[in-house]
Amino acid sequence: MKAEVYVTLKRGVLDPQGKAIQHAIEANGSDAIAAVRQGKYFEIEVAPALEPAAARAELDRIAREILSNPVIEDYRLEIHE
Amino acid sequence: MKAEVYVTLKRGVLDPQGKAIQHAIEANGSDAIAAVRQGKYFEIEVAPALEPAAARAELDRIAREILSNPVIEDYRLEIHE
Repeated sequence: MKAEVYVTLKRGVLDPQGKAIQHAIEANGSDAIAAVRQGKYFEIEVAPALEPAAARAELDRIAREILSNPVIEDYRLEIHE
Repeated sequence: MKAEVYVTLKRGVLDPQGKAIQHAIEANGSDAIAAVRQGKYFEIEVAPALEPAAARAELDRIAREILSNPVIEDYRLEIHE
């Protein structure tokens, strides 16, 4: 079983890294982009012994408590059986 | 129009950051995880003037040349109309 976790900054939180990327793209000569926000992406291989329901609960806890900072970030968890 | 770009290390490229995250999760008391690989995630707001076909070609170029390092990384581009 595999899982993917996406961590993004909450709306309203400034993203200087995204701004820097946007400026780099503009400096590269492209005007295709209006805004960029950078997030994090985790591919997780779930331990085979775990039941799907237990895995979902545990991965949700890991995404919330370890992979993201809930003060400034949102996370999204996708599980592929 | 919005686009998402996912950048991941190619298979076979060592991911010490992913290993460190895996060890942190194990040290936190969880045995739910067999492996973690960390990637990057970009949310892009496309300039409104751009035609969809031109946008796709230009975003593909940006993902390949600016957002990823093709020697060690793969990228995936998703466009939402």
